[in-house]
Amino acid sequence: MKSFSIKIRLLRVSSLLLGLSLGNISAWADETLTSITSPNQLLNVAVQAAGDGRLSYTVTRRGKTLIAPSRLGFLLTNAPQLDAGFKLEKQSLSEHDDTWEQPWGERHFVRNHYKELRLDVVQKPPFDRHLTIVFRVFDDGIGFRYEFPDQAQLHEVKISDELTEFVVAPAATAWWQQGGEVWALEYPIQKTALSEVGMANTPMTIRTADGTHIAFHEAALIDYPSMWLRKVTGQKLRAHLTPSATGPAVERQAPFNTPWRTLQIADNAAGLYMSDLILNLNEPNKLGDVSWVHPAKYIGVWWEMHLEKSTWGAGPKHGANTANVKRYIDFAAKQGFQGVLVEGWNQGWDGNWVGAEANFSFTKPYPDFDLPGLSAYAKEKGVNLIGHHETGGHIANYEAQMDAGYQLYASLGINSIKSGYVTDGGTAIFPSANGQHHFGYTDSQEGTRHYLKAVQEAARYHIAIDTHEPIKDTGLRRTYPNWLSREGARGMEYNAWGNPINSVEHEANLVFTRMLSGPMDYTPGILSLEGVKGRPINSTVAKQLASFVVIYSPVMMAADLIENYEKFPGAFQFIKDVPTDWADTRVLHGAVGEYATIARKDLHSNDWYVGAITDGKARTLDLALDFLDPDKTYVAEIYRDGKQADYRNAHRHDIIIEKKIVTAKQHLSLQLAPGGGQAIRLKQSGG
Amino acid sequence: MKSFSIKIRLLRVSSLLLGLSLGNISAWADETLTSITSPNQLLNVAVQAAGDGRLSYTVTRRGKTLIAPSRLGFLLTNAPQLDAGFKLEKQSLSEHDDTWEQPWGERHFVRNHYKELRLDVVQKPPFDRHLTIVFRVFDDGIGFRYEFPDQAQLHEVKISDELTEFVVAPAATAWWQQGGEVWALEYPIQKTALSEVGMANTPMTIRTADGTHIAFHEAALIDYPSMWLRKVTGQKLRAHLTPSATGPAVERQAPFNTPWRTLQIADNAAGLYMSDLILNLNEPNKLGDVSWVHPAKYIGVWWEMHLEKSTWGAGPKHGANTANVKRYIDFAAKQGFQGVLVEGWNQGWDGNWVGAEANFSFTKPYPDFDLPGLSAYAKEKGVNLIGHHETGGHIANYEAQMDAGYQLYASLGINSIKSGYVTDGGTAIFPSANGQHHFGYTDSQEGTRHYLKAVQEAARYHIAIDTHEPIKDTGLRRTYPNWLSREGARGMEYNAWGNPINSVEHEANLVFTRMLSGPMDYTPGILSLEGVKGRPINSTVAKQLASFVVIYSPVMMAADLIENYEKFPGAFQFIKDVPTDWADTRVLHGAVGEYATIARKDLHSNDWYVGAITDGKARTLDLALDFLDPDKTYVAEIYRDGKQADYRNAHRHDIIIEKKIVTAKQHLSLQLAPGGGQAIRLKQSGG
Repeated sequence: MKSFSIKIRLLRVSSLLLGLSLGNISAWADETLTSITSPNQLLNVAVQAAGDGRLSYTVTRRGKTLIAPSRLGFLLTNAPQLDAGFKLEKQSLSEHDDTWEQPWGERHFVRNHYKELRLDVVQKPPFDRHLTIVFRVFDDGIGFRYEFPDQAQLHEVKISDELTEFVVAPAATAWWQQGGEVWALEYPIQKTALSEVGMANTPMTIRTADGTHIAFHEAALIDYPSMWLRKVTGQKLRAHLTPSATGPAVERQAPFNTPWRTLQIADNAAGLYMSDLILNLNEPNKLGDVSWVHPAKYIGVWWEMHLEKSTWGAGPKHGANTANVKRYIDFAAKQGFQGVLVEGWNQGWDGNWVGAEANFSFTKPYPDFDLPGLSAYAKEKGVNLIGHHETGGHIANYEAQMDAGYQLYASLGINSIKSGYVTDGGTAIFPSANGQHHFGYTDSQEGTRHYLKAVQEAARYHIAIDTHEPIKDTGLRRTYPNWLSREGARGMEYNAWGNPINSVEHEANLVFTRMLSGPMDYTPGILSLEGVKGRPINSTVAKQLASFVVIYSPVMMAADLIENYEKFPGAFQFIKDVPTDWADTRVLHGAVGEYATIARKDLHSNDWYVGAITDGKARTLDLALDFLDPDKTYVAEIYRDGKQADYRNAHRHDIIIEKKIVTAKQHLSLQLAPGGGQAIRLKQSGG
Repeated sequence: MKSFSIKIRLLRVSSLLLGLSLGNISAWADETLTSITSPNQLLNVAVQAAGDGRLSYTVTRRGKTLIAPSRLGFLLTNAPQLDAGFKLEKQSLSEHDDTWEQPWGERHFVRNHYKELRLDVVQKPPFDRHLTIVFRVFDDGIGFRYEFPDQAQLHEVKISDELTEFVVAPAATAWWQQGGEVWALEYPIQKTALSEVGMANTPMTIRTADGTHIAFHEAALIDYPSMWLRKVTGQKLRAHLTPSATGPAVERQAPFNTPWRTLQIADNAAGLYMSDLILNLNEPNKLGDVSWVHPAKYIGVWWEMHLEKSTWGAGPKHGANTANVKRYIDFAAKQGFQGVLVEGWNQGWDGNWVGAEANFSFTKPYPDFDLPGLSAYAKEKGVNLIGHHETGGHIANYEAQMDAGYQLYASLGINSIKSGYVTDGGTAIFPSANGQHHFGYTDSQEGTRHYLKAVQEAARYHIAIDTHEPIKDTGLRRTYPNWLSREGARGMEYNAWGNPINSVEHEANLVFTRMLSGPMDYTPGILSLEGVKGRPINSTVAKQLASFVVIYSPVMMAADLIENYEKFPGAFQFIKDVPTDWADTRVLHGAVGEYATIARKDLHSNDWYVGAITDGKARTLDLALDFLDPDKTYVAEIYRDGKQADYRNAHRHDIIIEKKIVTAKQHLSLQLAPGGGQAIRLKQSGG
């Protein structure tokens, strides 16, 4: 490296790299351009410019630095990099406070209260390019995004990499799932020092030494690649945009905005889950009347395949045969489930159905599956069939048939579809302009386009979507409320055949990591507590019930076999009772990967439901019932671990079901077994 | 995730991710296809296939597993992924042992002794694609590469990512430099647990608990992107190919081979540096007679700019003015230096010369620089001018003028060029087919193409190249011996203006990391021990001298100002004496980042030179002289730290220069001061 004229920039980069104080050498010091404080005054974001016009931001909370100066900017492929030479042209500060209504969700009304700082910056000549950076500072965190105004100098915007950094100041522990790979976001969630993160998926949750919790994520991911967080050095993370198969990671025409880069910040894990920041950073409902979107509980021809009792494909063990499906419809009708999912109903499951050879039909049922007959039969019984569109990752094949597939379902009155994108650790197959297909990441810009397109097209047919092997959730359910749920983490099926199966702390990890992004179709309720060949899962029965409250999804599959529900009618009662749509949600206890207690109020009654789960440790948690209406009495229907219950032995099935009369002034002592949980229905009984 | 049919693959991936033993569940067990052992039988590579035909390799040494099963394969963008469904079609084993002569180097003759295993594998139908994987196992490590044979099913090969993994089995410490960025490879070398690596440049050196050292790197990087190592989880690393600005990371037509992925393995740090594996994995000299390539010592109009005493650009302080350059030529002639580098001789240094605005002329000197006159003057004095081509990263501008630039220099008898690619943390500017320019990484496939093109074109003019801000060295000097040296790590200039300056352990880091890849134009010899404004550097005078031996480069700049060399004639004598081309090299002591003693034998005499350096700790090292000819007597000219010498205080200048008569039977005690060193010339005096 030679050069004196760029010395100052080199010095700055070196200093930032090493996290050194820039000390008293004034030439290197950043100038603070402006700053903004949260409505409650606790959280502050400052924006600095270095001598070379390189911008960075800093986050402090209660006076402590959480995010040390972290760089902003872009590398472009069709124009010089957009990261330095900036000067502030204009800034504007505003405050926003309103409350909006959700068609469905964890709570009916959401308050959206933030201060906004818009910074219009311009690069010095000869570039003269404009960029707007918008910070929204809430009491529970911050979001910021870049806005590219249209301009002659930068109309076509081709981004090779985003330079956005997150330099975490205090030493921290991280709960993270590996990113930079495309395997359906289904890697185990690990706990390591933040310094041991390689490339992380988001949300990634960290806890600093003083107990502050931060979740890094993004909101409103539209027409842009998914952001991973790559560890650079120490505790410095940098945005890494999922690459494109065909060119730069991003190809857009100005004007456009990037997704919001988000930091949810709270004093503890419970506070993190209580944040609505991701939803608040999304646009309001664009679909208008969505009364055709129905939160629901369902059962499915699904777990029997994972247990190897039947097959997706044709043959003597084909699960989706008319007689078997009728059995499920009958059971759903009898027990009050609103839907029946049927996987393996359509042609294409035979042979290799994943990847380039995938050749699913989205309109042709197997001969032994009477689609119109079963739809009519279900309707007669007051049950909806839930459609199923597995793509095997062949998005080109799916897009060619998508409209026909939706149309078929709509014609039969089927109003929700579970879709799937199994890619076997590889890449999905996209249509190319030249008629050829190409292979690309599902998390790329074209991947995000496809997933949203599927939801938008489905909306035209009044169909709701539950995406499996999805793009990650960034709160788009607010804008497109027919995007009901998704997978995007290890689900219950790993307890059938996984090696390893889901760990005993998996649910306590999910609540404070994956679940921060939105609903997950986790398919709890395996009352048999058994996978393939009777292999036990890491849970008690009470924990299975509690998961219906703890792991939120507006559509929720009671996943076990009919015969198992018939075998355990006591516990099954809670599964029948628990709703999937809520007026309110409160996190009462929580520690990432250890335990969580969540209380939720039914949207359609005055009942509350409580779910508590623990990891491998037995715990006693004090449950104050002060969330109840103080003027009412409640019948607590309690489903708790038996005295000897333990996920590690045959007593995992021990459950005590009892009733108590309680009021808001009382406390309950939650005794959770190792790997256990507790589920409570609090039924309002009188004043 | 749903799917039973791909269960086995999911299980496998899960198991590998968690580093779990696959235990006794036979369906998951990998089958060992074949294995190969090094000539000395200590090192073994086994290749396994999983039940789904996914290939992996394992490395054991002395019976201990160093590399646990690590995946092989590719993600493609124009065809299904190439990573599974393989079966072995043919394998062949061979042994190779020869010794080849270097035109210049650390040693004159290099033994190339390995066993080679060629595995021809084919994917099962319907893909039927062939791939060859070649392992070469040496006593000092392994190299493996993929060979893509031409075939109808895979003629155009578009690779989005390479899946090659390196799963390090024993816990290890790593010395690494951050990768995934393009800032001229000039980040500080860090020491962390291997688990704390984010994305690393190569060579990356690790030390396991039992002291085994492994360096990860690549050899023969041609027409392919540079490989970074990305930490996935724990101690699992994966190849990460530098992305392309315009499409997939790699676009090639079969047949072609990837670079070699290399692991140099030794019992200690010294053994690592003694390895010639990288050179051995490169093709022999393709240039024929290279007697026009001249290792040399030079001085330069360079440090004065870094000290802010003069400027690269025009003006009253312009360094490259005729009178000043004559002064350098006179000094070089008088003191026996073969070359004088002049930076800032050509038009383009004024204004912003880095990036899109770079507009260098490679033929037009500044008016105050008499290029023909100075060339003639130098020649008259027996000195060569060294050419200088700074590009500012504007490769398109450079390529357009490259031929004219070389031609001009050749016409003046200038036979070596220092080139530069300062990009300011961003990207270089490449020519596009459509006449537009685009911005891409210097380490991308097109970057590697450019750097090699510059060397190949220069060879046509019998010009040697010393690349600064280069693509990393992968041993191509064997094939193109006019690629004399390069930078590719923090050089001396950081001691002028760096914040921080180079650490006291920097040289001891370099020897066992960066220097494993090849020569570095490190520009030692700052006898003033001062940077800008007299700021002291982390070294004693003796260490400056020792660096001429320890940090190998066939072209070596004595970097200090003329007046400083005149001020310290005693120490300067060693700089005048030390050669830059060697018959042999021995590492006598070494610990990564701590200390190193290297003895080298002059190619053109019977003299040996020893350099020893230490980090911030004082050390006493026992130097056995048994490398000397046992039948001869030598005069040891010793340059050692003074008794009170210490890099932290004013005694850093203390040096004792003395002579001793020694023989091969004797030992010398090297007393190294904190931040110190020792340089010894061992002059053969008689039998």
